[in-house]
Amino acid sequence: MKALVTGAAGFIGSNLVDRLLAEGHAVIGVDNLSTGRLEFLEKARQSQSFSFVRADLLNHGGLADLMGGADLVFHMAANADVRFGTQHPHRDLEQNTIVTFKVLEAMRQAGVSRIVFASTGSIYGEAAVFPTPEDAPFPVQTSFYGASKLACEGLIEAFCEGLGMTGYIFRFVSILGERYTHGHVVDFCDQLREHPERLRVLGDGRQRKSYLHVQDCIDAILLALDQANGRVNIFNLGTDQYCEVNDSIAWICERLGVHPRLDYTGGDRGWVGDNPFIFLDCSRIRGLGWRPKLGIREAVVRTVDDLARARLPAK
Amino acid sequence: MKALVTGAAGFIGSNLVDRLLAEGHAVIGVDNLSTGRLEFLEKARQSQSFSFVRADLLNHGGLADLMGGADLVFHMAANADVRFGTQHPHRDLEQNTIVTFKVLEAMRQAGVSRIVFASTGSIYGEAAVFPTPEDAPFPVQTSFYGASKLACEGLIEAFCEGLGMTGYIFRFVSILGERYTHGHVVDFCDQLREHPERLRVLGDGRQRKSYLHVQDCIDAILLALDQANGRVNIFNLGTDQYCEVNDSIAWICERLGVHPRLDYTGGDRGWVGDNPFIFLDCSRIRGLGWRPKLGIREAVVRTVDDLARARLPAK
Repeated sequence: MKALVTGAAGFIGSNLVDRLLAEGHAVIGVDNLSTGRLEFLEKARQSQSFSFVRADLLNHGGLADLMGGADLVFHMAANADVRFGTQHPHRDLEQNTIVTFKVLEAMRQAGVSRIVFASTGSIYGEAAVFPTPEDAPFPVQTSFYGASKLACEGLIEAFCEGLGMTGYIFRFVSILGERYTHGHVVDFCDQLREHPERLRVLGDGRQRKSYLHVQDCIDAILLALDQANGRVNIFNLGTDQYCEVNDSIAWICERLGVHPRLDYTGGDRGWVGDNPFIFLDCSRIRGLGWRPKLGIREAVVRTVDDLARARLPAK
Repeated sequence: MKALVTGAAGFIGSNLVDRLLAEGHAVIGVDNLSTGRLEFLEKARQSQSFSFVRADLLNHGGLADLMGGADLVFHMAANADVRFGTQHPHRDLEQNTIVTFKVLEAMRQAGVSRIVFASTGSIYGEAAVFPTPEDAPFPVQTSFYGASKLACEGLIEAFCEGLGMTGYIFRFVSILGERYTHGHVVDFCDQLREHPERLRVLGDGRQRKSYLHVQDCIDAILLALDQANGRVNIFNLGTDQYCEVNDSIAWICERLGVHPRLDYTGGDRGWVGDNPFIFLDCSRIRGLGWRPKLGIREAVVRTVDDLARARLPAK
């Protein structure tokens, strides 16, 4: 299989690239390196089966040419910053919605018909049902990020329905693991490294969130790609657990051996548009035989270790 | 009240403009006249309270200036062509999704916080529940038009949630009435005028559709604007009825006094992405006291009469 991976130098994208290469596939990685890091592809670039193209999907004229001969596209590139969406609403529109449209149009021109898309549980907004299934009541969007991913899903579905493509849409909870670069674990670890005696916590710490380890996430994607055969295949991806932000803080502090004072900013949301409760019903993907190997606590603790290792000075 | 109406020279937009003026409001009408017709604003332009600006919302630099002093925006401009979406997918993205984003950004700059949005029952795709309520199971999109309107709804919701706006989103069934310019009634009337002895019908004629008269539609919008006070207010708009395309054909033929041979193209859909059954649950808007004055049959027959009148040579 020859796959094109967008966002190849990002957290999830680079882990996916490594896995695809390990399984013997050929991979073209595309990234504009705006948030992706070339060092995440250090191992991949030693492979004969990998090629990297630095390109901005929003403005790249020859996207269809890049896709020549690819069997499918893993579209992982995105503005993944949920929190600051209100500061620059155009970013989610451009980097997510419009870029996804351009990827789909390039696929059509190049005759590539299968797309895997990294969507998000954020599109359920403040869900009315927990755990939230894929066919939950029609949600109201609460963030520009969620709105843009919803728009991407709609575009993919329209291309599948109207133009014969096949789509695999995965609605992720927060993903953790090696090369994780933003989110609460990295924020807390950064803070505690700088001042182990105190920790600023957005909201009241009672927000209930779900996490999944990146390797479990990739297992699920590859399994679904092999097993699901609808025109549009939509899967929630998460563990069957959730935790409070306070639980995660306790695990992180225990692992780091620190006992900080907790300074809560207050309120039941970390920021405008923060979902106070994310918990997805993942029985659809479990029905294909997938089980996550790591629970939330293990995923958090491993990520703390990965972050500590990544910060050691280079040899 | 001072309202800005986009798509002011269109079918629904121009009827809305006339109503707003009749109720004593000031109206700024904006239209690029790509499908809108200046003649639809003939009456409005005689009013001191009306001003018209020919502008393309996609490329207009000074949109925020146009909005100065407006109390709310009725965003009715759109590419309303569902059927040919697969021939030019970028059109729905640009004319609907991106234009809506630009309208919202201009509103933010101009300090206008209320938006009324013309959405569509098409966003329910092939619904799983009939009649379909606003909180139906999370739909899969089946047309570029539906996908683009879904994207617009998400954007409006994100602006409401994150940036303090208030949104009124109306998911229309097909709207009929004076100045109606595209859809099955105009298509059938055009055909029967040209060759009264035969009628080409897309699909098998068994598709079940819902229609609403434009004046009932406007009644509902203005009532909701007055009565609903959520941050995001979403309403289905339709009658509590549906009909088969064959029913509509019978009413049209009876009204025109013709007996054509019916040539069905076959299949249960008129075209790729055509919904074989549209029937919305409108109990939410009925809960505010709204009742349509015309049923589907009366709406169809009046539209046939309107079309016949519009085709009479000018005096």
